[in-house]
Amino acid sequence: MSSTIFIQTPFQSKSLNKSLNTHFVPSFKLPVSLSFKPRTAAFSKRVHIRAGLIEPDGGKLVDLHVSEPERELKKREAASLPKVKLTPIDVQWVHVLSEGWASPLTGFMRESEFLQTLHFNSLRLDDGSFVNMSVPIVLAIDDLQKASIGESDRVALLDSDDKLIAILTDIEIYKHPKEERIARTWGTTAPGLPYVEETITNAGNWLIGGDLEVIAPIKYNDGLDRFRLSPVELRKEFERRNADAVFAFQLRNPVHNGHALLMTDTRRRLLEMGYKNPILLLHPLGGYTKADDVPLSWRMKQHEKVLEDGVLDPETTVVSIFPSPMHYAGPTEVQWHAKARINAGANFYIVGRDPAGMGHPVDKRDLYDADHGKKVLSMAPGLERLNILPFRMRTLAKNKEDPPPGFMCPGGWEVLVEYYASLTPSDNDRIPQPVAA
Amino acid sequence: MSSTIFIQTPFQSKSLNKSLNTHFVPSFKLPVSLSFKPRTAAFSKRVHIRAGLIEPDGGKLVDLHVSEPERELKKREAASLPKVKLTPIDVQWVHVLSEGWASPLTGFMRESEFLQTLHFNSLRLDDGSFVNMSVPIVLAIDDLQKASIGESDRVALLDSDDKLIAILTDIEIYKHPKEERIARTWGTTAPGLPYVEETITNAGNWLIGGDLEVIAPIKYNDGLDRFRLSPVELRKEFERRNADAVFAFQLRNPVHNGHALLMTDTRRRLLEMGYKNPILLLHPLGGYTKADDVPLSWRMKQHEKVLEDGVLDPETTVVSIFPSPMHYAGPTEVQWHAKARINAGANFYIVGRDPAGMGHPVDKRDLYDADHGKKVLSMAPGLERLNILPFRMRTLAKNKEDPPPGFMCPGGWEVLVEYYASLTPSDNDRIPQPVAA
Repeated sequence: MSSTIFIQTPFQSKSLNKSLNTHFVPSFKLPVSLSFKPRTAAFSKRVHIRAGLIEPDGGKLVDLHVSEPERELKKREAASLPKVKLTPIDVQWVHVLSEGWASPLTGFMRESEFLQTLHFNSLRLDDGSFVNMSVPIVLAIDDLQKASIGESDRVALLDSDDKLIAILTDIEIYKHPKEERIARTWGTTAPGLPYVEETITNAGNWLIGGDLEVIAPIKYNDGLDRFRLSPVELRKEFERRNADAVFAFQLRNPVHNGHALLMTDTRRRLLEMGYKNPILLLHPLGGYTKADDVPLSWRMKQHEKVLEDGVLDPETTVVSIFPSPMHYAGPTEVQWHAKARINAGANFYIVGRDPAGMGHPVDKRDLYDADHGKKVLSMAPGLERLNILPFRMRTLAKNKEDPPPGFMCPGGWEVLVEYYASLTPSDNDRIPQPVAA
Repeated sequence: MSSTIFIQTPFQSKSLNKSLNTHFVPSFKLPVSLSFKPRTAAFSKRVHIRAGLIEPDGGKLVDLHVSEPERELKKREAASLPKVKLTPIDVQWVHVLSEGWASPLTGFMRESEFLQTLHFNSLRLDDGSFVNMSVPIVLAIDDLQKASIGESDRVALLDSDDKLIAILTDIEIYKHPKEERIARTWGTTAPGLPYVEETITNAGNWLIGGDLEVIAPIKYNDGLDRFRLSPVELRKEFERRNADAVFAFQLRNPVHNGHALLMTDTRRRLLEMGYKNPILLLHPLGGYTKADDVPLSWRMKQHEKVLEDGVLDPETTVVSIFPSPMHYAGPTEVQWHAKARINAGANFYIVGRDPAGMGHPVDKRDLYDADHGKKVLSMAPGLERLNILPFRMRTLAKNKEDPPPGFMCPGGWEVLVEYYASLTPSDNDRIPQPVAA
């Protein structure tokens, strides 16, 4: 089996339970250690080489857009409905849901889905099977909004400019147990969690779930919409390139040469396994991020340079933006990052140290154990079909030194230098760290 | 199907999602409303009437006791091993594990099981199926104990009198992420959670997992050991009585006539469904409880009176003690209470309002939404085989009035009066409430 092939390579498979080797590879010439491994000894799985891309969760990609001929009708209908105003992050979630990243979800979660997400990080389908779903995708409303909805079974969702975004139908309003949601999603209730402060603390005490009818594809008009390929578009692109494996790399920071080496090496190994044309999905997160992450526009400039400079092969790399907001919920969130990429056609997912992690907002330590992310990911219900590729890196970010020669291609580095120069001194207090997301 | 039968009874099935009726039945003559229902509309299931008891989780009941001929050998082996001292609650968990209540667990959790419990409330077996496991069953040690264990792959576990209880083999020591454990298990980190203060706050920063070899069955010598039937013994008893259905009622408070009526009515309905001999497992929790719960010895006296007075039929009722400590973790813990009863042979589980709940330790509200327990239970991975019987009660405990005539049989009431009389005034500030656990 394929795992045997890997065990014969210099990058040996490690037993998850006992001997997980957490130190970094000492050679500086080879800053990346990549271990392909079965999920765990107990949950062995095989890598199937098969024609066609991995199936989306639930068997079918959800598309929640209203067809063009229906739009006017829906707009007229919406005019008479109770209105709920969305925050920019709510709109990002509408975007995520509308394109099927969260398939088979068809809208903001009702209580049954919310509770399953909080307690089980998964949803059970009618046939008894599970799909992964680890972060609540919910819409909060306050008492006044709830009162204004009254007995209506549907509401119109507007953006901050009062533009109609969607209709939410067959709605269910239920309590928003904020403390419990935070505790179960982040494993802490400490003050200072960025997503919590931005979206939960001051949000309403109710959640409203239902099915979405999205009036038109969400656009941001920031010059980057061309990079925002939907799962359907990504799958078409992978098929156009005759991909027989897709390996996804989620990041929310600049690509450095350690990343690049890792990605190139992953492709080489997939070829060794027998795949004919593995394609890299280089997939920066484009939704809400905390203030000290490098902004999306700068990251995209840097990623483009990295491709231009030939560090990554444009023939076998697709750069696209993942529209999700960032929770910084570590082992819980990394499951969402992986699950969404299944829906985009990826059957391999690269996971680094402390994925979706951050410092504890109060204590002087990391919020999550750096190894829990990949362990939890390897055991998560509903992700059995995904091949997890853990890697470890000689993280240059951890020391405060200048990057050594070869760390980043010159073009990419210039973009970063320009970004840092653009910061005011107070922004610059916390230097964004070039680590995998 | 059987659910149709129930829908034809006066106790109609309610849709879980939309119209869950949370008010109490107004008739005082019939203080109990019992709704049998499919798990949810989406997860419909059938009640199978089959010969033999429900299979334990993992297909086989775990028995972690050393065989008698081996005991002396094990004691000699233990003499040379590093020692870990157990708290009384640790010993209760050894008891729970040793008899297979947590089957297929074979000892204190290793990290892989701990993480799956925290994140997924379930464990995946080698065949890909899930068993439910919602509360961490872990053993904490401190830095000194960890150092004293060194490279040993096994340790001896002693009780507070230095008596050898068990050997833990093939051990794994890993970090005890207290804050995260608390947040994910209780959905809060507020100070004042009884189990947390008793067992976690001052516990060590490491957890030690491994397989248990228990030297001899755990006894408490409190006069109640005769009630502590193991899952094996309970299954034998149910078979001896030719039970073709077993319905379990977990409680940690006195039985009043509302409970009794509920239980009698449940049996009647199971007979209507076609079962020939449904047996009630009246199963008070016997491990650690918080200070203001009625102590086990008083509860057992009261339960015996209730049987003696004929309020419950001794022919069709088995009273036994469930040895687990109490977490008061609401929707998370009720899954454990249900799962353990599957292992004891129960295929029906009665769940009330706010199971395993308590007041929020800081805010003036219940810690959990009163309906979340039964909702979460009905959707929990690994509990698909269990039939959930939700009930609602005109909770007399909620008003501070005297119980009306017919609330409790006179014998049972006298026991309670005696118990309250035995309390000092300060104990008596918070009157224990006769509600389902």
